[in-house]
Amino acid sequence: MRRDDVKTDTPSSGSKTTAPGVRTDLRGRLHEVIFEADTPAGKAFDVVLLVAILASVLAVILESVNSIRIEHRQLLRQAEWAFTILFTLEYALRLATVRRPIRYAFSFYGLVDLLSIIPTYLSLLLPGTQSLLVIRALRLMRVFRVLKLARFVGEGEVIQAALRASMPKITVFLLAVCMVVLVVGAAMHLIEGDEAGFSDIPTSMYWAVVTMTTVGYGDITPQTTIGKSLAALVMITGYGIIAVPTGIVTAEFTRVRTRRTGTQSCPACGVDLKDPDARFCARCGAQLHA
Amino acid sequence: MRRDDVKTDTPSSGSKTTAPGVRTDLRGRLHEVIFEADTPAGKAFDVVLLVAILASVLAVILESVNSIRIEHRQLLRQAEWAFTILFTLEYALRLATVRRPIRYAFSFYGLVDLLSIIPTYLSLLLPGTQSLLVIRALRLMRVFRVLKLARFVGEGEVIQAALRASMPKITVFLLAVCMVVLVVGAAMHLIEGDEAGFSDIPTSMYWAVVTMTTVGYGDITPQTTIGKSLAALVMITGYGIIAVPTGIVTAEFTRVRTRRTGTQSCPACGVDLKDPDARFCARCGAQLHA
Amino acid sequence: MRRDDVKTDTPSSGSKTTAPGVRTDLRGRLHEVIFEADTPAGKAFDVVLLVAILASVLAVILESVNSIRIEHRQLLRQAEWAFTILFTLEYALRLATVRRPIRYAFSFYGLVDLLSIIPTYLSLLLPGTQSLLVIRALRLMRVFRVLKLARFVGEGEVIQAALRASMPKITVFLLAVCMVVLVVGAAMHLIEGDEAGFSDIPTSMYWAVVTMTTVGYGDITPQTTIGKSLAALVMITGYGIIAVPTGIVTAEFTRVRTRRTGTQSCPACGVDLKDPDARFCARCGAQLHA
Amino acid sequence: MRRDDVKTDTPSSGSKTTAPGVRTDLRGRLHEVIFEADTPAGKAFDVVLLVAILASVLAVILESVNSIRIEHRQLLRQAEWAFTILFTLEYALRLATVRRPIRYAFSFYGLVDLLSIIPTYLSLLLPGTQSLLVIRALRLMRVFRVLKLARFVGEGEVIQAALRASMPKITVFLLAVCMVVLVVGAAMHLIEGDEAGFSDIPTSMYWAVVTMTTVGYGDITPQTTIGKSLAALVMITGYGIIAVPTGIVTAEFTRVRTRRTGTQSCPACGVDLKDPDARFCARCGAQLHA
Repeated sequence: MRRDDVKTDTPSSGSKTTAPGVRTDLRGRLHEVIFEADTPAGKAFDVVLLVAILASVLAVILESVNSIRIEHRQLLRQAEWAFTILFTLEYALRLATVRRPIRYAFSFYGLVDLLSIIPTYLSLLLPGTQSLLVIRALRLMRVFRVLKLARFVGEGEVIQAALRASMPKITVFLLAVCMVVLVVGAAMHLIEGDEAGFSDIPTSMYWAVVTMTTVGYGDITPQTTIGKSLAALVMITGYGIIAVPTGIVTAEFTRVRTRRTGTQSCPACGVDLKDPDARFCARCGAQLHA
Repeated sequence: MRRDDVKTDTPSSGSKTTAPGVRTDLRGRLHEVIFEADTPAGKAFDVVLLVAILASVLAVILESVNSIRIEHRQLLRQAEWAFTILFTLEYALRLATVRRPIRYAFSFYGLVDLLSIIPTYLSLLLPGTQSLLVIRALRLMRVFRVLKLARFVGEGEVIQAALRASMPKITVFLLAVCMVVLVVGAAMHLIEGDEAGFSDIPTSMYWAVVTMTTVGYGDITPQTTIGKSLAALVMITGYGIIAVPTGIVTAEFTRVRTRRTGTQSCPACGVDLKDPDARFCARCGAQLHA
Repeated sequence: MRRDDVKTDTPSSGSKTTAPGVRTDLRGRLHEVIFEADTPAGKAFDVVLLVAILASVLAVILESVNSIRIEHRQLLRQAEWAFTILFTLEYALRLATVRRPIRYAFSFYGLVDLLSIIPTYLSLLLPGTQSLLVIRALRLMRVFRVLKLARFVGEGEVIQAALRASMPKITVFLLAVCMVVLVVGAAMHLIEGDEAGFSDIPTSMYWAVVTMTTVGYGDITPQTTIGKSLAALVMITGYGIIAVPTGIVTAEFTRVRTRRTGTQSCPACGVDLKDPDARFCARCGAQLHA
Repeated sequence: MRRDDVKTDTPSSGSKTTAPGVRTDLRGRLHEVIFEADTPAGKAFDVVLLVAILASVLAVILESVNSIRIEHRQLLRQAEWAFTILFTLEYALRLATVRRPIRYAFSFYGLVDLLSIIPTYLSLLLPGTQSLLVIRALRLMRVFRVLKLARFVGEGEVIQAALRASMPKITVFLLAVCMVVLVVGAAMHLIEGDEAGFSDIPTSMYWAVVTMTTVGYGDITPQTTIGKSLAALVMITGYGIIAVPTGIVTAEFTRVRTRRTGTQSCPACGVDLKDPDARFCARCGAQLHA
């Protein structure tokens, strides 16, 4: 997840002392309210926005249910347009108050903001695209910015740090899994053939993924004895290797935590003391606890 | 889980020395028997109560089976009323002997105790509500109080401590999972549509949960190639992120254990004592527990 | 798993020096061959026995397959009787050579040995009990005794130690899971009712177990919106708490390993040094590495 | 995974100084390009080869899909022959440039290389063997050699080290699981019988594997109350023991990491240096790397 919108030097930085003009000041204050969550107004804006996003997502979900759509067609259509106009206004304000509009427009949040309003306008030309509005759910990621003020942000950072550290190992692991899926899928296609549902290699690979991840829908199942034996082997393998990503991530979580808990520092040179039993600073040689 | 009923100053505290009257004394002794499990009588009361709860839950389970209900209708009905009257009596006694009845009545255990007897009386007005009696199963949580006297309580506390420490991270994780479920559910509804069973977004979200948690009922499965590809991606993602809560909880378990084992320190040099059985400080040689 | 048969003082202990008689000597040597795996003859006996057990289990498996049973009825029947007579002979020899036959007969291995031969004799009276012969598979546990001589025994001990240490916590955890299964099962029976397959509480509890363990057969699935919502909640809960036993066992594995690696002992009093940085023995105060 | 082809003393070792002849030199250079990935030419060769392998695997996958095969039969046939001739040429070059062709031919990679071209030639005699071509997917393992130059190799080594260290314990664990599968399978065959799909012991064992690994297809499910109870027990057991391999692998991952970070020791007092960046010993204050 990208940190946040665009790191912008707010045009109002120092506006209180110089006050170059009412318009700029308004723009600065609006920027503060819209983009930041440190002031009461900014936080209130974000909370109201989150509620509006939640309501609009709920409206999209409800509209997808046939019985509700038929009964409340008019109301849902109005709500959809109301939310779209509200979000369009917000998008325009963001473009107007941010210093580098182009950079915002192509940032992750900028694109999500744009994609959240397009489908409604598009539905005037192409009916049936309203379901795309669910992309608004991605806007809920702003919740993490509001939570930033609470204790959750530290936790989120620990998770992110552990996941980032695990990524290379997980990548190697997934590459190996993909190769196994390919070979097992092709083998099952040969063994079972069309009747059992293993009609082509992509379908058999889909079965292999369903089986190795222990999801096990049961829409395709082996029928022959050889197929069942190979499937049992694949399951036990999958059961065994489910331990690998878990082991990787757990080791990283433990490491992240350990690194954090070494919170002592040398009184002489200020370096972090990694060895809790140290009697001399490992960097400058100053005696500790003397 | 709340710690226990209401922390009550027993009215009998000191009753042995002052003996203000027979009724108060009786009330105090009853309180000791009913609410505490430290005396033989109190423990016996709790064990008898647990057996009665188990038997009443069993009766509710058996009554839900059609063949048994038809054959033993009379017996089961009698047992139900017997247990209800017994539990009503117990509830009245608890209210009578506890110092702050209102606080008990609105505590977790108080509400469960009340809800355990209401359905039977309710069934006189509304037939078919007996199944609600299974809420009595929650009363079995009292088993943890009886076990408190055994070694299991320490284990339970370790689990609780680890879970409480993991909660913020798990919350952040579940929020992220919910967002993925929402987006994936809407995408599958668009891709697969009505024929495959992805009839609306809530149903598709249900499918996404079933898939990401690797439950995989198979009541709804993707039929198109794109849908199967996205499903495979979701499964592998779910398989990968199952590691995250495990990693979080495991790291906490390791931390809880570490914190527990190293709580003593040398009175002479102040170093942490890593060996709980130590009789001499491992750093300075000072004698301990002398 | 019990350690091994009965710890017997072999009657031949010292037979080489005193030689009290040919019969006793033969019995002692037989005991050594049959019960122990330290001598070449004893190991050979165990390996031959394992092969015979494997072959007899394979015969039972093959006999259960209809097409094979019809074709090779005569051969399989003969093999079954051959193995049964062989194992009866071995059982008799064990009883004859062990010092305390009663204790052996009621030990875990003794009971398994007996149960491995009874079904064949029983089938003379009651046809169709041959499938019980598969209990012979339990005799394969003897493989661990043969492996004892190899490096696997240490690994097995680490697993056993970690599991034994985890047991109390796992028990508390399973108790809590059972309670959840009971309450969820009853709730789903109320919500879904007969049509969806939740015909009674035991069946609903079976569904709850199938769901919480992420097995997900799909033979019973919720149909109503409320039922699906509750099911989704149960799945996410199950997904979250699968971390608990894993965390418990992993913490124990880490601890067992750590305890093992502290392999230094005090040269003065011989106690294990649990603190690898110790400069004085934590038990007797003797200076280390002086 | 074997390390790599055959460790060969390249015939060109020193060819730049002696230059014994053009042909040998060419062979040496070819060897360098084909077998090694340290030179730009060698890396380019490997990347081109990987792309060709990927394309040929894709062609095999596409050919297995009925609709595509019918439409593009001619094109796919030509691609198959083109790739086969290319890989045959490459195989011949490998045999010609490697010093010990026999050893290469019987190495893991040599066999995979051979098996990757045989099926096409075989299809001239036996139609329908093209699916065997998917064995070419195994050639993608060469990707790990190309990645060797990147940071991924270290990660792969950590995974391999942790898995190799876990192997004995995992083996003991899988042996125990197999025994449980055998006994549970036989018991379910006895309890459920033919109607529920538990027609013979091998099928019941397949069901036991599907259940214990939490895959849960649902193609075979218990119907009787006793069967469902046993199945629920098996699921909870499987849920509990999924923790064992995870615990084993995680403990090894933690150990591997720990061993890596603590390999330096103070030259003055010999204590382990826990801080890899230390410039002074944390115990005695001696200067390091002086």
